[in-house]
Amino acid sequence: MKFETIDTGVIDPETLPWTPYVPYSPEVLIKLLKADPVRGEFISFLKAPVDMELPKHHHSGTVIVYTVKGAWKYKEHDWVATPGSVVFETAASSHTPIGVSGYGDEIITFNINVGDLIYCDANDTMLAKENWRTAVARYLDYCKEHNLTPVDVTSFDG
Amino acid sequence: MKFETIDTGVIDPETLPWTPYVPYSPEVLIKLLKADPVRGEFISFLKAPVDMELPKHHHSGTVIVYTVKGAWKYKEHDWVATPGSVVFETAASSHTPIGVSGYGDEIITFNINVGDLIYCDANDTMLAKENWRTAVARYLDYCKEHNLTPVDVTSFDG
Amino acid sequence: MKFETIDTGVIDPETLPWTPYVPYSPEVLIKLLKADPVRGEFISFLKAPVDMELPKHHHSGTVIVYTVKGAWKYKEHDWVATPGSVVFETAASSHTPIGVSGYGDEIITFNINVGDLIYCDANDTMLAKENWRTAVARYLDYCKEHNLTPVDVTSFDG
Amino acid sequence: MKFETIDTGVIDPETLPWTPYVPYSPEVLIKLLKADPVRGEFISFLKAPVDMELPKHHHSGTVIVYTVKGAWKYKEHDWVATPGSVVFETAASSHTPIGVSGYGDEIITFNINVGDLIYCDANDTMLAKENWRTAVARYLDYCKEHNLTPVDVTSFDG
Repeated sequence: MKFETIDTGVIDPETLPWTPYVPYSPEVLIKLLKADPVRGEFISFLKAPVDMELPKHHHSGTVIVYTVKGAWKYKEHDWVATPGSVVFETAASSHTPIGVSGYGDEIITFNINVGDLIYCDANDTMLAKENWRTAVARYLDYCKEHNLTPVDVTSFDG
Repeated sequence: MKFETIDTGVIDPETLPWTPYVPYSPEVLIKLLKADPVRGEFISFLKAPVDMELPKHHHSGTVIVYTVKGAWKYKEHDWVATPGSVVFETAASSHTPIGVSGYGDEIITFNINVGDLIYCDANDTMLAKENWRTAVARYLDYCKEHNLTPVDVTSFDG
Repeated sequence: MKFETIDTGVIDPETLPWTPYVPYSPEVLIKLLKADPVRGEFISFLKAPVDMELPKHHHSGTVIVYTVKGAWKYKEHDWVATPGSVVFETAASSHTPIGVSGYGDEIITFNINVGDLIYCDANDTMLAKENWRTAVARYLDYCKEHNLTPVDVTSFDG
Repeated sequence: MKFETIDTGVIDPETLPWTPYVPYSPEVLIKLLKADPVRGEFISFLKAPVDMELPKHHHSGTVIVYTVKGAWKYKEHDWVATPGSVVFETAASSHTPIGVSGYGDEIITFNINVGDLIYCDANDTMLAKENWRTAVARYLDYCKEHNLTPVDVTSFDG
């Protein structure tokens, strides 16, 4: 039965690729670590140049962001997320991420997303959505294109 | 502090109104019971005539549906949800609900939604989204329009 | 990969047995419907005579209880849960359930538990814990004892 | 109403104290960042000397651990969590953490816990439990003892 193999495990990020965040911002890289296809939680790293700007987006669920390196902010908020800080995003919030200078050339964040991320235009028209499913598809496409053998990031078998 | 008032409580559905599910299907009624503005979970009843059909939609998170009365199905699945049955919808699933005859004229379901519900057209273009925030707004609008004093359905103060 | 078979499905409670809630209260019956071994959520029905009393217990996570039939309360609260009502229990709450007369001889509730339920004595010493794992074990033991072929209640394959 | 003030915010760990993990291991320090009293999720850093060993414990829900510095393992598993790695612990798992040498004298982890952590003895008798409530109490006690003005770590008001 499904539960018999479920176990606690470690994920070594060195074994997983950085994939360009197409079609949004190819200079932004995502490393998907784990995705739960039942609940919709997915865990990833994001790496971006300090001059990055990502489109405005809405989150259906919570997001927890630990900043490993560099600094960034949301245009809609005054605060800046610097290395070691933790951002807690509540369900149905929306915002526009931009890099903040003064903390190096590169931004790396560790992210725990639940549910969808929806990209909107200036009139809040929904343009595209990202979630566990699109994150897994991007990872598998990248592996195929680069002749890498994918691991099952949707497995919790320890 | 916020946590000091948090407590377990009962919700008496008789104290809360059935609100038309505008602008989608005014003959479908929703009774919002509770909404968590941090996590995005919301709990509600739905009441619909057996000849109802709701537009195709996508869920960002899980949905649990207990059918109190009547029967319904998704066009995309063969199974029928009859009284007393439980449907578990996984994150990033999509489907088109329709009533099923043979179990009475009315359908009532008890629903626990996490995150967004996104209505799409036949080409999967996203048209509208529903979540804890729109559910609370619809309830508050209804109260205002009908001169009812709203209760705070986003409070967990017992 | 694990995600490829995940899908929305219906659970027909008629296909699953009522199992005595041993060793706590054999006259209380539990029907386990689904258990998520990753997140620890489990969904069940409970059936009990109106004169039931269950030991005091603590919940690590949330519990949502929809009362299908009969009435019950917690000794620690004044409110009574009657048919059609919804109880929302917040994380790290504790209480002692008892039946309430005046609504028939039998209580049936639909329950969504997240995490552990810990039985305590009068001094809050922890005596036993229940969770997705013990719920699945009780179901499998019952099937073995009664020569029933168990279904995999930990699968989300639609 | 409660939802009106809910918003996304940043937590600056410099503004929050390291508190000794009494009564378990006073040389282990915890920095509580945020606690959700509805769902039972709490977010914290842990700092420990490399020769630390914590008692065996059980988790009711999931735990996600990002290792910032140093290395550690569970006696029950062969893998080692090194800097930058991510551990995903499934609900109702149990294990005994110990430091691993070769990666410096200090271990720092970023932890997202859902629900209870229960300390057990060698016979799995439950001795003590930790959760959002005990984590908040330890923080408030520390503030009182050291004449610090506590912030409300249970608020999601941005």
